[in-house]
Amino acid sequence: MSGQSIGAVQTQRAHFDQPLTLRSGAVLPAYDLVYETYGTLNAAKSNAILVCHALSGHHHLAGYYADAPDNIGWWDNIVGPGRPLDTDRYFIVSVNNLGGCHGSTGPSTINPASGKPWGADFPIVAVIDWVHAQARLADRLGIDCWAAVMGGSLGGMQALRWTITYPERIRHAIVIAAAPKLSAQNIAFNDVARQAILTDPDFHGGHYYEHNTRPTRGLRLARMLGHITYLSDDQMGEKFGRDPKNGAFAFNFGVEFEIESYLRYQGDKFAGYFDANTYLLMTKALDYFDPSREENGDLTATMARSKAGFLIVSFTTDWRFSPARSKEIVAALLANGGDVSYAEIDLNFGHDSFLMRDAHYHSVIGAYLRNIKL
Amino acid sequence: MSGQSIGAVQTQRAHFDQPLTLRSGAVLPAYDLVYETYGTLNAAKSNAILVCHALSGHHHLAGYYADAPDNIGWWDNIVGPGRPLDTDRYFIVSVNNLGGCHGSTGPSTINPASGKPWGADFPIVAVIDWVHAQARLADRLGIDCWAAVMGGSLGGMQALRWTITYPERIRHAIVIAAAPKLSAQNIAFNDVARQAILTDPDFHGGHYYEHNTRPTRGLRLARMLGHITYLSDDQMGEKFGRDPKNGAFAFNFGVEFEIESYLRYQGDKFAGYFDANTYLLMTKALDYFDPSREENGDLTATMARSKAGFLIVSFTTDWRFSPARSKEIVAALLANGGDVSYAEIDLNFGHDSFLMRDAHYHSVIGAYLRNIKL
Repeated sequence: MSGQSIGAVQTQRAHFDQPLTLRSGAVLPAYDLVYETYGTLNAAKSNAILVCHALSGHHHLAGYYADAPDNIGWWDNIVGPGRPLDTDRYFIVSVNNLGGCHGSTGPSTINPASGKPWGADFPIVAVIDWVHAQARLADRLGIDCWAAVMGGSLGGMQALRWTITYPERIRHAIVIAAAPKLSAQNIAFNDVARQAILTDPDFHGGHYYEHNTRPTRGLRLARMLGHITYLSDDQMGEKFGRDPKNGAFAFNFGVEFEIESYLRYQGDKFAGYFDANTYLLMTKALDYFDPSREENGDLTATMARSKAGFLIVSFTTDWRFSPARSKEIVAALLANGGDVSYAEIDLNFGHDSFLMRDAHYHSVIGAYLRNIKL
Repeated sequence: MSGQSIGAVQTQRAHFDQPLTLRSGAVLPAYDLVYETYGTLNAAKSNAILVCHALSGHHHLAGYYADAPDNIGWWDNIVGPGRPLDTDRYFIVSVNNLGGCHGSTGPSTINPASGKPWGADFPIVAVIDWVHAQARLADRLGIDCWAAVMGGSLGGMQALRWTITYPERIRHAIVIAAAPKLSAQNIAFNDVARQAILTDPDFHGGHYYEHNTRPTRGLRLARMLGHITYLSDDQMGEKFGRDPKNGAFAFNFGVEFEIESYLRYQGDKFAGYFDANTYLLMTKALDYFDPSREENGDLTATMARSKAGFLIVSFTTDWRFSPARSKEIVAALLANGGDVSYAEIDLNFGHDSFLMRDAHYHSVIGAYLRNIKL
């Protein structure tokens, strides 16, 4: 794989005093956003790319911190000099979304009105709220129009929303492993995950910070369940099989199969650092996302508002947001005579494919970005 | 739909004093089985059919109880005079499996050694253990050889196991919506369900009976998750959609979508009557099931032991045990030159299709059974 890491990076913080009216009707009087930038904004300010994160992501997209060299960004493999998101050419912006738990204002930050963590009092946020907040950050950075907004999964939904809500401020959208809205089954998985958290006795109605506890049991279950939907059935079979982990079965409730070990490890790790209230909010943002509601469910009419060029990418083994879901977006764009490229990548990592380093996949992204005129 | 209900039925109980050595190596010194029978055993004792239940099933297969007319058997739609399992022709036997929670010896029954409920001390049971116990019940009923053993899902696995373990005692096997073994993904779903129960603070290491509590939170989550895997994605979309349940969104953690209402209701209902320890045992029996392990993973060599005729049935929309999994069994039987019929039924109810009343599906079962010589 060509290209290099961007190297050591720094997190920045922006405070916003102007109230933000949310999709729910609630008003956030003020808020902070933490973000990172890589590369240099050109004089014409025409080379900025916004990368949006998914459910458990954050602003630390690429590089590492000088004082924590092992803390490498979640999509480092695609960002850097000579990489598809080429920092020699582009100015990359990555922001932790409102409601997050990595520094931006969210349930675990202090509510000025109470002097205590927001907890369950933090309002429900929607994808459109994140897009409005990102637009204000763009204003702050002097970016009138993004060369591109992109992301995978929930990140792709933000890119899609940008093209509808701010058609004059985005020239290209790269929407990867996403869907125009969740299916009932997608919502069902999210609801089981939420119920695991909401019914954990340590949840305390979302005010667990004050009880010096955390609903780790529920969050662990939510993450275990999530992982099943991120991987493909085939990949799970190839990677973990179903032979006894220890040669023979013990006939108890310990680990009998490799997949149990993997899921429990992933669940424990995640529950150790992620905030349960943020997890709840992110899954709700997924559930509510459906821009076509503004046009009575007509996705074609909705996408007619967009003026952006599109690259839509899906993965053959993704059953969370299958290629068929991406093609719904493609069809709506084509029906409007829109400028759309579509790539269906044959990768065996299910929904998680979008995070993988794969030469073909990365060449598709890289080629699209190289062809954008600055 | 032709045929009638069998009408009022009675549950019977059999006590077994002969110790049963289980797959795990544990020995059950004595046990009870509750069961029901419908129809009349003929003089040649050649017309007996054993119907095996799945994860949450039991012995009350058909009819109702005189003192509880609303308590209708779980597969009543297929059993009765003139129905596919025709009680004018066949003697039908249905038994609650060991480890169950409907009357047979299991975690919630009294352990004679302690005078308290078995709880977590009840041994892990495997499909082969159920088959051995069912064989002893057959002895008790004077049935040397079943005309057929049948079941859906985990019930189908018992039918499959019968043909391998007691080839001289079964003439036909009807294996519906099953698989020769679980995939890693199947096991993964089971493990999340189990972890929900095992980590519920009310589980008390499986001895919750003594604490006058029940791990209903965990069992509820397990059942919600299970239901997602029982239904097809398409059916969920058609039945529940993703429109706001109440016309507009409330932006809170209550019910926003119909599917949430459905899952929570199903979870609550199940957690209200089913025993969590039994749920754990049933999912473990599923995980461990893999008769081919006795032949180093060679399913063809395994099925070569069988002498039965087979009807294998799968459903197009079943993604828990897809048609491809049924075809693995068919292929192994064909490789041995076995007597096998295969039907892939186009029904939209996912894994749950096997419980549905459908004319085509029922005609396939009925025709196969009518052609069995008594």
